[in-house]
Amino acid sequence: MVTRAEVLALDQADQLAGFRDRFVLDDGLIYLDGNSLGALPKHTAARVADVVSREWGRDLITSWNRNDWIGMPTRIGDKIGRLIGAAPGQVVCSDSTSINVFKLAAAALALRPGRRVVVSDRGNFPTDLYMIQGLAELTGGGVELRLVDETEVSAAITEEVACVMLTEVNYRTGWRHDMAAVTAATHAAGAISLWDLAHSAGAFPVALDAVGADLAVGCGYKYLNGGPGAPAFLYVAQRHQDSIRPPLSGWLGHDAPFAFDLGYRPAAGIQRNVCGTPPVLSMAALECGVDILLEADLDAIRAKSVALADLFHTLVEERLPGTFGIVSPRDAARRGSQVCLTHEAGYAIVQALIAARVIPDFRAPNILRFGLTPLYVRFGDVWDAVDRLVTIMETKTWQQPEFQVRAKVT
Amino acid sequence: MVTRAEVLALDQADQLAGFRDRFVLDDGLIYLDGNSLGALPKHTAARVADVVSREWGRDLITSWNRNDWIGMPTRIGDKIGRLIGAAPGQVVCSDSTSINVFKLAAAALALRPGRRVVVSDRGNFPTDLYMIQGLAELTGGGVELRLVDETEVSAAITEEVACVMLTEVNYRTGWRHDMAAVTAATHAAGAISLWDLAHSAGAFPVALDAVGADLAVGCGYKYLNGGPGAPAFLYVAQRHQDSIRPPLSGWLGHDAPFAFDLGYRPAAGIQRNVCGTPPVLSMAALECGVDILLEADLDAIRAKSVALADLFHTLVEERLPGTFGIVSPRDAARRGSQVCLTHEAGYAIVQALIAARVIPDFRAPNILRFGLTPLYVRFGDVWDAVDRLVTIMETKTWQQPEFQVRAKVT
Repeated sequence: MVTRAEVLALDQADQLAGFRDRFVLDDGLIYLDGNSLGALPKHTAARVADVVSREWGRDLITSWNRNDWIGMPTRIGDKIGRLIGAAPGQVVCSDSTSINVFKLAAAALALRPGRRVVVSDRGNFPTDLYMIQGLAELTGGGVELRLVDETEVSAAITEEVACVMLTEVNYRTGWRHDMAAVTAATHAAGAISLWDLAHSAGAFPVALDAVGADLAVGCGYKYLNGGPGAPAFLYVAQRHQDSIRPPLSGWLGHDAPFAFDLGYRPAAGIQRNVCGTPPVLSMAALECGVDILLEADLDAIRAKSVALADLFHTLVEERLPGTFGIVSPRDAARRGSQVCLTHEAGYAIVQALIAARVIPDFRAPNILRFGLTPLYVRFGDVWDAVDRLVTIMETKTWQQPEFQVRAKVT
Repeated sequence: MVTRAEVLALDQADQLAGFRDRFVLDDGLIYLDGNSLGALPKHTAARVADVVSREWGRDLITSWNRNDWIGMPTRIGDKIGRLIGAAPGQVVCSDSTSINVFKLAAAALALRPGRRVVVSDRGNFPTDLYMIQGLAELTGGGVELRLVDETEVSAAITEEVACVMLTEVNYRTGWRHDMAAVTAATHAAGAISLWDLAHSAGAFPVALDAVGADLAVGCGYKYLNGGPGAPAFLYVAQRHQDSIRPPLSGWLGHDAPFAFDLGYRPAAGIQRNVCGTPPVLSMAALECGVDILLEADLDAIRAKSVALADLFHTLVEERLPGTFGIVSPRDAARRGSQVCLTHEAGYAIVQALIAARVIPDFRAPNILRFGLTPLYVRFGDVWDAVDRLVTIMETKTWQQPEFQVRAKVT
């Protein structure tokens, strides 16, 4: 049996251990929901306050130039690019993940005229699928969304497929696609790859350029620690940029936005994928989160994530045998950065954990989801979380009535 | 000739004068660009800091319930509704104005099957037109954008028109449509009205419900003082809400977002028009700006705006006869809340004004635009602004080389 002392020794040896102090986290709290909302970096508050008081309050409209608000989408985009294996000039920060899915799925279809099928898997985060459904309805049958099981994606990529749209890591189970293999299969069929990196960016190294990815989107508020509802990002490989006519053709994607021409003319390069005026305060917070990640070694983050998940799996098997299903893959190569257990009383157990100062989240119908964010989650946290879970199951704490009431958002 | 003493007496009698102290503004600065970026309310910094440190930093993911992040789009939407004559349940705060134009223009076309023409005017803000151009391209000819001069809109509303999309106040000239008359003409032809309130909301009373408007969008960072790139809003009249299938069908517009169904099913009412996860920090700042406006009397704001503009026009005519063209309407009923002068050296003159601590903005090709925001612009500011303009013109200060260099954003 793994002991707490052995686990605390892992924290002693952890080269990333110093990063935890860069975040605002109550020492008594075990926060395992950074895959839903990343923790607050300590320097974010001062930066946001400066943007509010100095850049907005004092410099007012001149900040678009003086404080380079106008450059934020590409500046932050390039920084995110360094986390996802994208050379400069291929990423912008803008809008929400949902909106960016719409932009790039429409772009993918336009890049493959004569094809109308978008392939995705049933494990994809629903909003990605919803956006394609909306696009299909809007274009009056110009798009067909074809859903398959996640292990059958490559087989589904036929010559009629325009776009293969996948979230690399399944939000519920942590199952991870083989991005290189699926992208190769996509290209072999002449289709366009659109990757959603919501549970990838900042969680482990991603190599968009190296695998030859075409398009990608991702989320700012999970592993990038950008704050609630932080703006999202999108990636367009250099070779496609001039061929894309943005379907959401807003003024900040115009070649000369301040010429106020009546006709839309897309900006050169990645800029055309920016649409309206971006939310500066939220973007400034996002940049702080990204900046911390840029100081860390993504390979070290990945190695620690794997070790945290392996430890979690081992402890659950040793101390709670047969109590939970384990749906997160044991094979690290097929896993993102989370551990997922199943239990028919999953919702109530999650509520009991929260009362015990362990914060995972629940995903219907029966999944307890534990996000592992190596910059601030310690090996000792994993030990303590499982320990408290053991207590909750032994004492049946979760059966208390207050843990059965479903909140509006879970 | 109007004297400075007479003008200062107007400030003494101004019932709104106390509001200026609610904003962060250097007393030596004359800020006449609140129609581009509203000034910073004093209470915004503390509120944003609290959202960052307590709601995000301490309460973390639980804030979606505990601090009602999930309710922000409709809560703030209802508050904005009170400023634009919309009963509760018809406005949400979300995305950017551009994105919201796309959503509602697509919705308008779907409400009028068999019609494909969108009428707008050449004075509309270009991003609104660009979004329709993108929609037209995406739908493969399903949409035709027809542009007319702004005085000829009603005549252009024929039976083949699906949607009449207008910005109530021309961003360059301040010219204002007759919303009631144009909406009536729109309905007489069986078409749908889509109003952009970018230069209306918070600037003067708007009566969407009373005029029978169908759809509207607007901007959070101008007269609502919501901060740089603040989220925008949209309005859908109650009678249309259940007929709208959002083209940008994101998960937060789903009837049960946390059921994670694979199929999109729109939420009841206005909520379906929310798309992805909203930028909470930026929304919190916006709410602060809206809250101040809710304390003020919009009729008093309008009366002061009219008086400020009339004074501005008078002073320019008295002290700078023949120097500038005046393109903002003299008839207040046809004017928004700005004064617009023309001069072939407009850009350089604006730069010289900025150097003299008067901040208007420049709109190509030759317009000097002075925004009048009655909560914090004083009659004395108008007098001093014109006085400094007189000095600049008399001394030809604007001819200095540093004022000729065009910045990236103007």
